[in-house]
Order: sequence, then structure tokens, then C-alpha cells
Amino acid sequence: LDEEAMTTIQGRLDSLTKPQGSLGQLETLAKQLGGIQRTSSPKILKKAVLLMAGDHGVVEEGVSAFPQEVTPQMAYNIMSGGAAINVLTRQAKADVFLTDVGIAFPLEGDIIHKRVANGTKNMAKGPAMTRQEALQALLVGAEVAAEKIQAGYNLFATGELGIGNTTPSSAIVALLTNSSVEDVVGRGTGIDDAGLIRKRSAIEKAIEVNQPDATDALDVLTKVGGLEIAAIAGSILQAAASHVPFVIDGFISTAGALIAAKLAPKSTAYMIPSHGSVEIGHCKALAGLGLDPVLNLNMRLGEGTGAAITFYIVEAALHILEEMATFADAGVSEKSN
Amino acid sequence: LDEEAMTTIQGRLDSLTKPQGSLGQLETLAKQLGGIQRTSSPKILKKAVLLMAGDHGVVEEGVSAFPQEVTPQMAYNIMSGGAAINVLTRQAKADVFLTDVGIAFPLEGDIIHKRVANGTKNMAKGPAMTRQEALQALLVGAEVAAEKIQAGYNLFATGELGIGNTTPSSAIVALLTNSSVEDVVGRGTGIDDAGLIRKRSAIEKAIEVNQPDATDALDVLTKVGGLEIAAIAGSILQAAASHVPFVIDGFISTAGALIAAKLAPKSTAYMIPSHGSVEIGHCKALAGLGLDPVLNLNMRLGEGTGAAITFYIVEAALHILEEMATFADAGVSEKSN
Repeated sequence: LDEEAMTTIQGRLDSLTKPQGSLGQLETLAKQLGGIQRTSSPKILKKAVLLMAGDHGVVEEGVSAFPQEVTPQMAYNIMSGGAAINVLTRQAKADVFLTDVGIAFPLEGDIIHKRVANGTKNMAKGPAMTRQEALQALLVGAEVAAEKIQAGYNLFATGELGIGNTTPSSAIVALLTNSSVEDVVGRGTGIDDAGLIRKRSAIEKAIEVNQPDATDALDVLTKVGGLEIAAIAGSILQAAASHVPFVIDGFISTAGALIAAKLAPKSTAYMIPSHGSVEIGHCKALAGLGLDPVLNLNMRLGEGTGAAITFYIVEAALHILEEMATFADAGVSEKSN
Repeated sequence: LDEEAMTTIQGRLDSLTKPQGSLGQLETLAKQLGGIQRTSSPKILKKAVLLMAGDHGVVEEGVSAFPQEVTPQMAYNIMSGGAAINVLTRQAKADVFLTDVGIAFPLEGDIIHKRVANGTKNMAKGPAMTRQEALQALLVGAEVAAEKIQAGYNLFATGELGIGNTTPSSAIVALLTNSSVEDVVGRGTGIDDAGLIRKRSAIEKAIEVNQPDATDALDVLTKVGGLEIAAIAGSILQAAASHVPFVIDGFISTAGALIAAKLAPKSTAYMIPSHGSVEIGHCKALAGLGLDPVLNLNMRLGEGTGAAITFYIVEAALHILEEMATFADAGVSEKSN
């Protein structure tokens, strides 16, 4: 990040008519945006949720409350504008771009076609994908981000869709944050107690069978990851390389962000936290990235919903930086020492 | 609140294309708004921050980092649109109405003139105001709220301005939540260690000298409160009586909301939480009201800034309720049992 721009912004923030630092995370966000855009007057031009979709062979193990057909059904719902993410991006005046990175069934319609495979394989029995597929899915994310940056977008949010995807996310978070499986496995879309036991067991089997190397994020992604999770990581890495910030949504998105952070640690400087999910592993994942969520909404939907709401807060930070009066302008006395 | 409207809304929320309950606080807010407006289709028409300003005699004790002249200076800054609350209400497409409930110096300009006194007296030496003044200031808040409801506003946020006002707020929160003074006294606008000791001591003296009856909120307000804090309480009570919800801002606002809650416990159902302030007593005050903040921005500015950002989240809740597709509409399979 550009230290000079951030210093200039800090100076301006301290001259505004408020106690120094009293706008907390809004001030931090204004500085971060300036550092990323390498200017003391950061601007948001166009914003989008890059929503990556993929299926998961591990659903065979009975790890999800919803059947796998819901992935394509929800993809169509998003294409026709009826999903929560459509509602929240309309409110945010943002776009949502849905990419098929590997849904198990082929789809038609307003979706970016970048299918790497018909979903992953069952990780409880062997690797979720090949290393080649993992790399290809990372590149899908990078390509989509590059294309949208080219089209003038300069603020992104992660989003994802894929029945079963809290299971690989839990495996990733357990391995990359050195946490126990129990501490990072939650109820996803709402599985019951028996399902929770099956889910933990599937993750433990996947780790046992595949022996992923926790020091090699690509190995973790290949063996216990997901195609859409890889694409999320790839999109973040491309955006960071192009000096474009990324708002990180919930648990699955944060698993993708962890992969990105392990592959390129400097990419964390381009990440903006959004909400703290109900999914119990989310706080471990966020802590692994050093991110403190700004929203506390007890959400657990995914799709990018928490991140889309956060766009408003990022914009608030820039409005504060641009529009507030200084102590000198307004003739307000400064703090006594 | 209207249970029938809330039940209808719950039914609709459960039919939308998302796991049940997965939108957390957004769902809670949609139900609350419906219960308050007594309809299954709640709408927000016009929104405003009712910003109450007053001064505090206790500043004599050296409890604030800023001189008292900053109250009128900031009032003028708000009138000319340069304060943080102006920036954030512009972004939220909301209005801000500034009321002089008792600034120590007379002001001119675009401010609602309802001066009850030239600030409070020094509570470390005797009661901050008379019981008559406290009642009058409560009525000021009620009048302003009634007038704006008449003008078509149906969503409010609290806001306040007044150098020294974290000191009476701390006293109120200590007494009404049965907390120790130490646990609820923070640095306000940024006082140093010596100032913090003076502040604690001023509050302890005020409680010692005045012996407020903690079971009588009006006695607490009179002896260790503030004129703008009284007006906040009054505005909330009027809004609740008129079935209009109120977003509660930071520490001072929450002290006002506590007074309202003690005077009329049912008014808490009309309160919407916003952010968790850095000010250490805020979590005690929020817990006293049963409110869980939705924003975690480490802010400590007041003026209504956290509440103004929260308007967006309230609107998101209603957009979700109105615009999302149902499982049936979208042909999406429901959860398997």
C-alpha cells in the first residue's frame, strides 16, 4: 500500500471536525482505500459481487440440509433476480456476476461459463480435484476479476454458491489456522445433530485419506477444497495485483481468502472485512487473516450478502473523507492539551 | 407490537429462497418493523436524526478534552452541513433536525429553539437541574418527535451534541444498570489519564452529593442527567406512543434510551440497536435495554453517526421482505428432513 497517500489521508482525517480517531473503522477504511488506490482521494467507480458457484462430491456423505439440485436452482434464481444477493446488490447499486466454476449440471442463461469440472469429487474418499483443476479454477477467478477491472469496476465483494461448501471450507480453515475440526464445523444451511456428526466425520476422513500438506495451500485446496473456493482465491489475487480491494463475505469466502493469503501474504492488505457469520469457524478464519468484521448481523446465507451490505460502509468512509469540514473551515476549537 | 403482523412476516421470511433464519438480524428487523407499524408490509417513508444539544455545568470539573465553546461551534457546523452527521445523513437520504434543548450560549440559524436552560448546573455540587426542568426537557423531545411524525417521518435515529455529556451519561448508566462508576466511565472525546480520574471523581461526588434514587429515573435524570439526554428520552417515548421506531446511537443516546425504558418499559420494543461504541459503558447500557448492536465500527463520535449508518440496514431488511423470491416462485427445492 502507498504509505504516502495513507499519511496524507491520516492528516486530513485528523483535521476534520471530530475527536481524532473517533470514526474508528471508517477512518481505517478511508486510509486503506487510499493506500490501495495510491491516492489521497480514493474513489469508488463501479462495484460488483463476483459470485462463484460450484458443487461438491462430498454431499454423498450427507453433510448438507439441502439436496445438490439446489445449486443450479439457486443459480437460476440469481439469474432471474430473486435471491437475497440480488436484492442487496440492487440496494447497493452494485452488480452481481455469477460464474459457473463447476456446478454438477450444465446451465444456460446469464452466467459466466467457466466450468472446470462437474463439481468436485468426494474428498472423504480421495482428493476433491487434481492439482491441475485447482490451478484452472484459481485462473477462472483471476480471469473474471481481470475482465471486470477492465470494464471499470474498482471495488469487489466475494460471493459463493454451492450446496455442501461449508464442509470443504471447514477442512481448509482447520488446516490453515491449525484448528481442531470440531472448532470449525458448524451447521451450514441448517443440518441437524446427526448431520453435524456426519459432517465432522467426513472432514476427518478427508484429512486422513488425503493427508493434505498444511504448509502448501494449493495442496489443501486440491485435496479438501472446492472449485468456487479456488475461484474466490484467484479473484482476490488478481484484484490485489491490480490494486483493487475486495470485501470478504462469510465463512466460505473467508476460506477462499485464507488460500489467497497463504499463496500471497500481501493480498491481505487488499481485503476488507464484512460480517461475522453464525458459522462457528468464521471467527477462526477471520483471525487467521487479521480481519475484524464491521457487521454483526448473525447471518449465515453466503452469496456475498454480508459483503454487499458492507459496500455502503466503504462508501461512508469515503464520503467522510471528502465531505466533512475541517476545524479551520468551521471555526471549531481543537482539543485542549 | 402487533403479533399477527409479525407472524405473517415470519411466514413470508420462511418461504423465501434462503435457509430459514439465515438472514439473522435482517429478519428480526423486518418483523420488528411490521410489529411496530402493525402491518405485514412495513414501509419507511421519511427518516430523520433528531439531534438534541445541551451543555453541562460539570465541565467545570475538567471532565472533557474539549472546551465548552465547542458545543455551539459544532452546532453551527451541523447547521452548515459540515459535520460527520451531515455527511452520513446525506448518504442515507435522511434529514437531521438539530434542537437546542439547553446550549450554554444562545444561537441563531437553522436550529429548533427549545432552550430549557443555559446548560445544566454542576452535578458534582448539586442537582444538574430541577425536576421541572427535567420534565420540560423530556417534553421538548416529545414535541419535536410529534412534529416530525406529523410531517411524515416514520423512522428516527437519536443524536446528541454537548461537551461533557459522557459524564452525566456514565452516571445514569451506573445508577440504572447497577454498575460501578469505574465500569462505565470512558475517555469521551479523548481525555487523558488525569482527566479520567477527575471524571470518575466528579461522577462519584455527584452521586454522593445528590443521592439520586436509582428506582426513580426522573430523579436520576434531574440530579445527574442532561437536558439533551432528557430530550432524547422524551422523543423516544413520543415515537413509541405513535408506533414509530427509533434507532439508538452511541453511549449518550443509550443513556437517554435507558431513561425512556425505565419510565415506560414497553418503549424498548420500539428501539433498534445500531453500533457498539468504544466508550466502555456502552455495552452495559445496551445490555440494560436488551439491545445487540449490528455495527462494530469502533466509533465514539456521537451526533447520531452510528444510527444514521444503521438506517441502511433497516432498509435492507425491508427490501429482503419485499423483493426476494419464494421457494415456490423460483422452483427451488426446500430443505430435506
